[in-house]
Amino acid sequence: MKTTAKPIENLINQLNKLPGIGNKTAQRLAYHILDMDIEKVKTLSSSIVEAKENVKECSICSNFTDQDPCGICADTRRDESIICVLEYPKDVEAMERAGCYFGMYHVLHGVIAPTKGIGPLDLKIRELLKRLESDEVKEIIIATNPTVEGDTTALYLSKIINPLGIKTTRIGYGLPVGGDLEYYDEVTISTALDNRRELK
Amino acid sequence: MKTTAKPIENLINQLNKLPGIGNKTAQRLAYHILDMDIEKVKTLSSSIVEAKENVKECSICSNFTDQDPCGICADTRRDESIICVLEYPKDVEAMERAGCYFGMYHVLHGVIAPTKGIGPLDLKIRELLKRLESDEVKEIIIATNPTVEGDTTALYLSKIINPLGIKTTRIGYGLPVGGDLEYYDEVTISTALDNRRELK
Repeated sequence: MKTTAKPIENLINQLNKLPGIGNKTAQRLAYHILDMDIEKVKTLSSSIVEAKENVKECSICSNFTDQDPCGICADTRRDESIICVLEYPKDVEAMERAGCYFGMYHVLHGVIAPTKGIGPLDLKIRELLKRLESDEVKEIIIATNPTVEGDTTALYLSKIINPLGIKTTRIGYGLPVGGDLEYYDEVTISTALDNRRELK
Repeated sequence: MKTTAKPIENLINQLNKLPGIGNKTAQRLAYHILDMDIEKVKTLSSSIVEAKENVKECSICSNFTDQDPCGICADTRRDESIICVLEYPKDVEAMERAGCYFGMYHVLHGVIAPTKGIGPLDLKIRELLKRLESDEVKEIIIATNPTVEGDTTALYLSKIINPLGIKTTRIGYGLPVGGDLEYYDEVTISTALDNRRELK
């Protein structure tokens, strides 16, 4: 019954570990890879390591980037008086796709989730507070997802940022509760931005 | 709008080329990979190239293997008088999973598909005929998929093998027409094997 060659089995196991890739899909992908030209296989393989090795976090906003500061932080045309706080780098892409926001970003790389042992110190909150010392920031838009963890994080941030005299707002509830920012269309994101309300 | 770092974009593009991986999934996978430990990323990356580099075709049955001859061809307990002809290596796995067949295999690496420019010379048919010269083969079970191409290939094979005095059978139509062998359960495959009929 054990007829699959070890390198194939190994590849299937590795692919199987990726999110949303079940055993069946991993198998399909593995056999597809075996049918590809060796050059294309090498390109695929190296693109994985190269992405991991060449992509760092921006020293300002903590978004993924291959140059520091990242393209957005380095863009002088953007409004530096406003920072949109997001959970993950993919959320920056979702915001940029919406094309309606021209301020800066700050990526937390997570949310406060006590059940998973993730506290404020595990997130890029110190880095955010440091930006507030030096920058002339007038508003922080907290655009964490409308989930329990996202709301908790928003409340926490507003409690430590409001005393600094900076307005904190929460992205509008145009988003269905329990959802994930990554999946919304431009109009929903744009509406949610317009509906933002101040956290006091 | 072009805010994604190039190595990320490159990785997304590479993943996007894999079958069944759309742009959205490619993005999810890419960001997941960026969040993985570098060691795990390297393991994933090298498993891809290693599978491609270390897996060859068995010189007897043309199945993928990391040793030549493959484990099945080298297994003296198997019945050498019967060869099951399959489209792809993944079909060997499906057959072995069914656990009801103890003969040998021959993998064609495709089917005759004139519309795609694939003729008999593009498949491992010469290799099959060579086996029939030397081996004491009494029956060829043609288990290509019950599609137009699979049936065409079966008919072609029976026409060139029958004159050699070797019985050719077609795997039974327990399988729904238009399907793909890879997806069937043990019982269906086992029934289909029992229902095989001779091609005259």
